[in-house]
Amino acid sequence: MSAEAPLRPPAALLDILNGARRPLLIAHLSPDGDAIGSLLALGGILYRLGKDPILSCQDPVPPNLQFLPHTDRITAAPADEVDVVVALDSSDPSRLGDVYQRGRYSRLPLAVIDHHVTNTLFGTVHWVEPAACATAEMVYYLGETLLAPEVGPDWMANELATYILTGIVTDTRGFRTNSTNARVMALVARLVAAGAPLTTITDQVLETRTFDLIRLWGRVLQTVRLDEGVISVVNTQAMRKDLGGLVRPESLVSFLLGAQEAYIAAVFTELPDGPVECSFRARPGHDVSRLALELGGGGHPLAAGCTVKGEVEEVRHTLVERLRQC
Amino acid sequence: MSAEAPLRPPAALLDILNGARRPLLIAHLSPDGDAIGSLLALGGILYRLGKDPILSCQDPVPPNLQFLPHTDRITAAPADEVDVVVALDSSDPSRLGDVYQRGRYSRLPLAVIDHHVTNTLFGTVHWVEPAACATAEMVYYLGETLLAPEVGPDWMANELATYILTGIVTDTRGFRTNSTNARVMALVARLVAAGAPLTTITDQVLETRTFDLIRLWGRVLQTVRLDEGVISVVNTQAMRKDLGGLVRPESLVSFLLGAQEAYIAAVFTELPDGPVECSFRARPGHDVSRLALELGGGGHPLAAGCTVKGEVEEVRHTLVERLRQC
Repeated sequence: MSAEAPLRPPAALLDILNGARRPLLIAHLSPDGDAIGSLLALGGILYRLGKDPILSCQDPVPPNLQFLPHTDRITAAPADEVDVVVALDSSDPSRLGDVYQRGRYSRLPLAVIDHHVTNTLFGTVHWVEPAACATAEMVYYLGETLLAPEVGPDWMANELATYILTGIVTDTRGFRTNSTNARVMALVARLVAAGAPLTTITDQVLETRTFDLIRLWGRVLQTVRLDEGVISVVNTQAMRKDLGGLVRPESLVSFLLGAQEAYIAAVFTELPDGPVECSFRARPGHDVSRLALELGGGGHPLAAGCTVKGEVEEVRHTLVERLRQC
Repeated sequence: MSAEAPLRPPAALLDILNGARRPLLIAHLSPDGDAIGSLLALGGILYRLGKDPILSCQDPVPPNLQFLPHTDRITAAPADEVDVVVALDSSDPSRLGDVYQRGRYSRLPLAVIDHHVTNTLFGTVHWVEPAACATAEMVYYLGETLLAPEVGPDWMANELATYILTGIVTDTRGFRTNSTNARVMALVARLVAAGAPLTTITDQVLETRTFDLIRLWGRVLQTVRLDEGVISVVNTQAMRKDLGGLVRPESLVSFLLGAQEAYIAAVFTELPDGPVECSFRARPGHDVSRLALELGGGGHPLAAGCTVKGEVEEVRHTLVERLRQC
C-alpha cells in the first residue's frame, strides 16, 4: 500500500475558523459516531484556541455514544451572537435540520467540512475530501494545523483522540471499509497511544445491540433471498410489533454483503408511516449511489440509501432488478 | 493506555530455532487465521535464515485463507529427517492431531509457541505469552529478533506482514478484543505500511460467509433466549438439513455477546455424530474458561468451549444455569 499523503485543510477554511469568535458547529440529523465525534473534536479544538463554540445537533446523542465526555454540551437550542456556521459530515443542508435556521444565519459564512462524495457544496467555503475515511479524520488534520502550533506536539488530549477515533471506527466499520489505508492506520495507532480506548469505542459503536435487535435480525433473516448476486431482506412492521418501537435492523446490510455469492446487499424496511426505506451496500467495482440519488436519496458508491413509496415486497422486486445492473 | 513493552522470546527458544536445520512446524487442527498465519510467517522467517522448514497441519487450509501466498506449502504428509518440532497456537498436544506422531518425534526437542493462558506446557521449551493478542504477534517478535539482524530493517517482506496481520485480525476479531492495545495497534500500522492488505484480510477472515451460513443464522436466531444475563441459542441438525454439510453458525456467539443485556453468550450446536459443542463468550470480569476446562474443553477467560453429551436443549438448560455463576 502506498504511503498516502496527509490531508491538508484549505487556507480559506483556516481563515474562517481562525477569525471566528463564536462559531456554531452543526452535526447532522440522526447523528452517528462520526457526526458526534467530529462535533465534539472540532468543538474541543476551537475551545482550546480561545473561541466560544456552540455544539449543535437537532437530534439527541444516541445512548451508545453517551460514553463520550461532554456530550451534555451538545444542544438543539437556538444560538445567539454566532459569527460563523460550520456544517459537519453533512452532504446537503437538509441534513442539518431545524438548528440551521437559514433565514437567521443566511448572512454568515457557512463552512462545510465533509467526506461524502455526494456533497452538494452548499456553503460559502468547502473542504470536501472523499479520500478521508471519516469527517473526524479531517478534523484531526484541522487540529494538527490549527492547534499544534499553539500548544505544541501534545495538542492531542486524550479526549480529542477519543472523539476522533470514534468517528473513524464508525465510518470504517472498525477498519473494514476500502477507505482504510496506511495513513488511517498510522493515525489510529497514534490515537490509541494518546489514550483513546479502542475496544470501548468499538464495543459501543459497533458491537452494542439490544436483545430486541437480535430478535429482529432473526425474523428479518427469514426473508433472505439471493437473486443473481443481489442479496436482500425485507423488514415489515408486523415483524416489529412486540419490539418496543425498534425500526431498523442496524448493520444487517453490511452483514449480508459478506455473502460470498453476492456483490450487492439491500435491506427494505417498511417505515412506521408507510414508505419503504432502502439501504444498499456494494462491493468495490459497483456503484449503488447513482440509483439512490435517482430515487431521491444519496450516499457513497459502496453505501447508499433512499426512501420510496410502495408495498415493501413490490419495492424489493422492482429495485433488486435495478440493483443487478449497478 | 500505557505503552506496553515489546514481547521478547526466551533465549532457550532462540537457541533451538537457531540450531535447527529442518524444523517441523505444526499448526493446530481446524486451523484458523492465527494458526495458518503463524505457520506461514514462522516458515518464511526460518526459510530466510537458510533452514528447510516443513509446514504441517492435519486439516486443509480453509477456503477463506487460500488468498494467502504459499498455502500450497502446507502439508499433512509425514516428514523425514526433522530435527526440531515447533507447535504453534496449540494449547495441548491433542490440538496437533496425527501430524505430530509422538512416538516418532518423541526424542526431538519440542518448542511450544502459544498465547493461550490454558496452555498445558507440553513441550521441552515454551514461550507462552497470554499478553500477546495472537500467536502471530509473537512470531513478529521472533522475526525481529532472528531475522532483522541478518537481513536488516527491511526484513519484513510484504508476505510476512500479510501472514502476521492475518493472525492478529483473526484473534482480535478485527481489533475488537481486550487484548488489542497500543503495542498491537502500532504493529498493525507497521504491517499495513509494509503492504499487508488490511481490508482484504478483514473481508476474508471476518466478513466472508456463505449464503447458507446466513440462512443458518436466521434459523438459529429463532431460538435466542435471554436468561438473566446469559444469552443463548441452539443449533440443531434439523435446522441444517438443506445446508450442504454446514455445521457451525460461525461468529454468532460474538454477535450475541453484543446484547447490552447480556454478560455471557453461548451457542449449543448438535454435532452430526450426536454430542453438543458448546461455545462460550464472556465480558471482562467473568470467566468461562473454568467451566469449559471442567467439562473437558479449554480456552481463555473470555472465550472458551467444550463438547458434552446429551440432548441439545437439556444441555442448554443445564449449562445456562452454570454460566450464570461464571
